[in-house]
Amino acid sequence: MSSIKVIFQPDNITVYVLPGTSIIEAAGRAGILIESTCGGEGTCGKCKIQVIEGEIESVGTRLACQTKINSDCVINIPEESRHSPQRILTSGLKRRKEIKPSIWKKYIELQKSTIENQSADIDLIKIALGADFKTDIYMIRRISELLRENNFRTTCVFSDNELIAIEKGDTTKIDYGVAFDIGTTTLVGTLLDAVTGKELSVSSRMNPQIQYGDDIISRINFSIKKEDGLENLHYCLIKELNEMISELALKAKIDKRNIYKIVSAGNSTMQHLLLKINPKNLGSIPFSLTVKEGMEIKAKKVGIEINPDGSLYVFPNIAGFVGGDTVAVILATEIHRSKDIKLAIDIGTNGEIVLGNKERLVSASTAAGPAFEGAHITNGMRASEGAIEKVVINDECVKVNVIGNVAPLGICGTGLIDATAEMLRKGIIDSSGKILGRNELKGKISDRLLNRIIEGKTQNDFLLIEEPDFGRRILITQKDIRELQLAKSAISAGIKILEKELGIKDEEITEILLAGAFGNFIRRSNAKRIGLIPDVHSEKIKFVGNAASSGAELVLLSRDLKQEAEFISINTEYIELSTRADFNQLFVEEMNFK
Amino acid sequence: MSSIKVIFQPDNITVYVLPGTSIIEAAGRAGILIESTCGGEGTCGKCKIQVIEGEIESVGTRLACQTKINSDCVINIPEESRHSPQRILTSGLKRRKEIKPSIWKKYIELQKSTIENQSADIDLIKIALGADFKTDIYMIRRISELLRENNFRTTCVFSDNELIAIEKGDTTKIDYGVAFDIGTTTLVGTLLDAVTGKELSVSSRMNPQIQYGDDIISRINFSIKKEDGLENLHYCLIKELNEMISELALKAKIDKRNIYKIVSAGNSTMQHLLLKINPKNLGSIPFSLTVKEGMEIKAKKVGIEINPDGSLYVFPNIAGFVGGDTVAVILATEIHRSKDIKLAIDIGTNGEIVLGNKERLVSASTAAGPAFEGAHITNGMRASEGAIEKVVINDECVKVNVIGNVAPLGICGTGLIDATAEMLRKGIIDSSGKILGRNELKGKISDRLLNRIIEGKTQNDFLLIEEPDFGRRILITQKDIRELQLAKSAISAGIKILEKELGIKDEEITEILLAGAFGNFIRRSNAKRIGLIPDVHSEKIKFVGNAASSGAELVLLSRDLKQEAEFISINTEYIELSTRADFNQLFVEEMNFK
Repeated sequence: MSSIKVIFQPDNITVYVLPGTSIIEAAGRAGILIESTCGGEGTCGKCKIQVIEGEIESVGTRLACQTKINSDCVINIPEESRHSPQRILTSGLKRRKEIKPSIWKKYIELQKSTIENQSADIDLIKIALGADFKTDIYMIRRISELLRENNFRTTCVFSDNELIAIEKGDTTKIDYGVAFDIGTTTLVGTLLDAVTGKELSVSSRMNPQIQYGDDIISRINFSIKKEDGLENLHYCLIKELNEMISELALKAKIDKRNIYKIVSAGNSTMQHLLLKINPKNLGSIPFSLTVKEGMEIKAKKVGIEINPDGSLYVFPNIAGFVGGDTVAVILATEIHRSKDIKLAIDIGTNGEIVLGNKERLVSASTAAGPAFEGAHITNGMRASEGAIEKVVINDECVKVNVIGNVAPLGICGTGLIDATAEMLRKGIIDSSGKILGRNELKGKISDRLLNRIIEGKTQNDFLLIEEPDFGRRILITQKDIRELQLAKSAISAGIKILEKELGIKDEEITEILLAGAFGNFIRRSNAKRIGLIPDVHSEKIKFVGNAASSGAELVLLSRDLKQEAEFISINTEYIELSTRADFNQLFVEEMNFK
Repeated sequence: MSSIKVIFQPDNITVYVLPGTSIIEAAGRAGILIESTCGGEGTCGKCKIQVIEGEIESVGTRLACQTKINSDCVINIPEESRHSPQRILTSGLKRRKEIKPSIWKKYIELQKSTIENQSADIDLIKIALGADFKTDIYMIRRISELLRENNFRTTCVFSDNELIAIEKGDTTKIDYGVAFDIGTTTLVGTLLDAVTGKELSVSSRMNPQIQYGDDIISRINFSIKKEDGLENLHYCLIKELNEMISELALKAKIDKRNIYKIVSAGNSTMQHLLLKINPKNLGSIPFSLTVKEGMEIKAKKVGIEINPDGSLYVFPNIAGFVGGDTVAVILATEIHRSKDIKLAIDIGTNGEIVLGNKERLVSASTAAGPAFEGAHITNGMRASEGAIEKVVINDECVKVNVIGNVAPLGICGTGLIDATAEMLRKGIIDSSGKILGRNELKGKISDRLLNRIIEGKTQNDFLLIEEPDFGRRILITQKDIRELQLAKSAISAGIKILEKELGIKDEEITEILLAGAFGNFIRRSNAKRIGLIPDVHSEKIKFVGNAASSGAELVLLSRDLKQEAEFISINTEYIELSTRADFNQLFVEEMNFK
């Protein structure tokens, strides 16, 4: 329980970790992804950091993956060691290094019409631009006046190939966009400078729709059962997004009228709700989307408050339960361009898996999330302050790391995975998932651990933490292990089905990409131990952070990628697991621990 | 002054004409165009009509061009003798015989999604249709509900490639559109059955914008000088169009909610006003259009009341003073597809001329219209009730035909052309346009005619009509002849410039197409005599009626032709006459009569 305080610079973010935690892991805890192509093996040398203060052998430049933290310290993480969206942007294809934002400006001095050489005002812009574009009647009504007010020297603002605004003088350097990842539980907004591609500010909030239901199905039911259900779900989301936009603009000290574009990636239901499309048919078989393709509309049409002519692009979906967020993950990780076979797992409230390469991509969705978000777990909770997020069991004691370094209130998904993996390692759980009784364990584990087994009539539980001061006990019950088995088995069987579809084996997967906040904090060895992910070499397992956000940012910064997102949406096959007999069989098989 | 009453059937339209008028001409007066490819020479045999009642040699089938009317009669004009828009439609290209309306419906029984085979609702329609389409967010929000309400058996309504409505059951037979010709002075609306291509009703009204100014320039000035000028011009037009739509629907006994599309062709200023785009820059050099290309928008965006999801297509323009109506004339007459060189003249409030063939098309605009509409003419008036529209001068008397067979109130354009041509024929006017004095004419014309010369100090006038009962005299003054000379010279010099541009001579023109209401009533021989049109064989001169309306109708009935209209807009060169020295010289030369 003796956590260590680590401050990361220049971000000035403080986290508390257990002794022995690597810097790369602690940084992840702080939301800072460090580049590590070797998977933490200490061979790629990309994760260089500087220890500024603290007793870590010696102060200076070190590898984040090889350096353990044993006392309070201050660490500087240089830009080049960060696994940023820009880093994803530039990895893979060289052409992506060039920023070609979907929202772009062009300052032009127009060749005015003369009596000998007459052109329509709009055509003057087309001539100067050397390209055609579309624009709507409202813009056309203002265009002649605007051009003359500005004496035909003007900055034209385009969203993809649509002229959306005309501004006085040269404003080409002032051009912002926001990428949103709209999750069932969490909203993440990133303000980007569309000229430089730089991230200016980030805002993260709970999805306020939670008041109408925790998961997708309960939201859909709310939209079906309440008269204003759809309106409530839509408007509370829009209101929150508007607040986030204000916050992002304030943080970055920019005027939100200079935000011209929003790109949003979310699951199918969230995307429908964002567009005020009733998601009711997503709630029952055959889980019909109303619209699969990406939608580009005026942001003001859904009440989003940016530039009055600003645009909103909502990602295309793949299926009812594999949405735009998955398209964004694929886009960011470039699985669809890879020669080698890769597996992406994005565990949010649902768990989506994608497997394949540029030849063929298959995807599936599993309802794995709730358990990993603490639902149906005896002392389960979300990964927020007070949640046990890391567990190490040794003979003397159980060490835990609690988010916020406060007294523990419960256990979150990563903590549960750790606890289960550790109990497996110690032999407290057998391969069937059963928590063994004291008699069965006697002589195999220390007495201290043995005392933690709470025997019941038909099953046993494990006492993880007892806080006498608060009268609080945190247990891992047999039921919790069963819930975890169901969740991990769903994902793992899903992966097996996708492998079967492609006719490949675990070892043919060259990379496992763990996306999303949850994936980001998983201990790879423990995830492998419980069988959540295939048992491949650790260097093949990569954290890609909030890849859904990264994908949305990419579309903001590279207008060619919108077509690519649509391509991914159309060309990623969706495998419905629920109707497959082989899935059900694998689901039972994968329930056991290996 | 003894007019003859002619009733045309099955239209049941009554007109009054002078004795000796041919049936083809009388029919033109009634707004009925008769097919005549030989130009009234009696050789093509296409203008067959039946005399039902009346003393015209013998009752029965006759040629309209060869039959003179000398007493009251009833004439039947069979469908096959009519020069209808559908006739224009089918002439030339064979493929146009097929109706392929820009507003079209398709009844589809959708293959519902299953859990094994999931498709987004919109994609179900795309699959059934075998084609992609676009649709807007408002439609998308309703689509899933609509499909299910109709149990996936539904009629989809498309405007070009946009899905605009979904209807219950099979409504494919109920599909209407309106083509508008929006002139400075006159509005003509035609209701079409988009399934059969049939014209169901026609409505024609004065453009109510006249209250804000007679011609284009005064309208533009009104929009500049009055605070709500643009709004007033726009809304009074829309209000009138809505009333016309109601009238058209009432006449044809259809529900105007089943009108899904409006296609409008008008001059550039009218088209800007229709779209509520300020035309102010069209009013001064360099006469800049805001938008040249065609615009497709939701009809409700400009307040047009048809189906709530209905569409409005506004024709592309060519230049500030050669608008969508000219594009429509070219489209309908197919000059742009012709191997031979053709000349089209559309005299409305302005006079637009187009010359060329599929190799090259040039166009120009002249401000010829006002004189032909009675402006600046001593006793001038528009071609409405009471206007002298035809004049024959013989030694005994001056015979005139008055619109509506009432006492004459003034003279309209065709009457002025006739009067001038007749005065030229009689030698009352010399080749310089001077009305000769009594001394100069003595012995050359009858005394009765001589008495009609009213001598002034510096110039002479001609007394056309004296109505003692009303104390009204209708004169052709020297000033009127000068006005006519200016107008005819402008058009004729314009034609010469276009010929010069193409490097051709009069005789290379294979057809002269006279479009518009005015062109329709011109006596060809008189128009040639005063030098308004080149002196080619009469059979080369054809009346094409309201070809602007025909062009708009074509786009309604054939969606491929929208692209063709855009093609014409881009590829028809505009020749600005006002800045050309050679135009000014020709303008002076053409002033004289030959």
